[in-house]
Amino acid sequence: MHPLISDRWSPRALDPAADITDAQLESLFEAARWAASSGNTQPGRWLVGRRGSQAFTQIFDALRPGNQSWAGAASALIVGCVVTEDETGRSLPMPDYALGLSAQNLVLQAVAEGLVAHQMGGFSREDIASSFGLPPTAQAVIAIAVGVLGPPSLLPDDLAAREVAERVRKPLSELVFTDKWGNAAF
Amino acid sequence: MHPLISDRWSPRALDPAADITDAQLESLFEAARWAASSGNTQPGRWLVGRRGSQAFTQIFDALRPGNQSWAGAASALIVGCVVTEDETGRSLPMPDYALGLSAQNLVLQAVAEGLVAHQMGGFSREDIASSFGLPPTAQAVIAIAVGVLGPPSLLPDDLAAREVAERVRKPLSELVFTDKWGNAAF
Repeated sequence: MHPLISDRWSPRALDPAADITDAQLESLFEAARWAASSGNTQPGRWLVGRRGSQAFTQIFDALRPGNQSWAGAASALIVGCVVTEDETGRSLPMPDYALGLSAQNLVLQAVAEGLVAHQMGGFSREDIASSFGLPPTAQAVIAIAVGVLGPPSLLPDDLAAREVAERVRKPLSELVFTDKWGNAAF
Repeated sequence: MHPLISDRWSPRALDPAADITDAQLESLFEAARWAASSGNTQPGRWLVGRRGSQAFTQIFDALRPGNQSWAGAASALIVGCVVTEDETGRSLPMPDYALGLSAQNLVLQAVAEGLVAHQMGGFSREDIASSFGLPPTAQAVIAIAVGVLGPPSLLPDDLAAREVAERVRKPLSELVFTDKWGNAAF
């Protein structure tokens, strides 16, 4: 596995004093921008705020309490959104899938910049729609905390234990099939 | 941008005589396996066949004619699927988004292996469900051709022209907002 891919993980212990540069922040979205999408329809959009900004507060306020317990130390908070139809009212195909492609580029670019990124499903899409004024054709899908890795001691005890736990995934034999569903390819 | 990300594109001109090694093929799914998912629910599944295999034919036969005009030269054809609920009947959150995260790892690992990958939305999900025997809780989302890049002269004229056309994306000012939707962050 390429180290850029194997080095990515989802830490919560972020240095609350660390800032990231404008160039670093822009590079994350530049990476996201160049992912593929069906017919190059590019349905992904991004909301971003640096720590201390109005946009950061808007995103932070939408997070579930469990995520608020650590994500305030992020250097930037991001929300990934999709637009579900174009200007002519035509539905855009597979927007969530395309956003996932873009978001993986974004979090891998964070690794390349020496940063860490943690994606969060636990937030209020309605609060984001309201505070940022999303049009009816746009939906918030994912929140992402980006920052500089700190020691697990920054975290409450339960989260500190999760921070150092072994990472686990299903084996390839349960994930990759050939000829028939369930027939392991490896 | 990290070169692994900037070097990725979606060519169609594949060398019809080139094979890829078992280690290369397995590395694509290993990369896909380590992407994040909501609560580590891992909803992504993969179907794969090498050129000449039954599984390859099953995937090829499901492609739209436009994709069949070039994708038969792939060293392997892949279909990305999602399972939409777990064994207990609980819905899995954001499966398409998670599959996108995994798929971007897969196509970037292809770049790392000196290969190319081209994602295709144009195929029959029903044909895949039938030929591979997908359970009702699984859906095919994306087809991916993986192979070794060949010269554009391998392609019909119209596709050869697209192969060398400049790649375009919307500017960051239309994609990344702060404070309010539409308020460019960069």
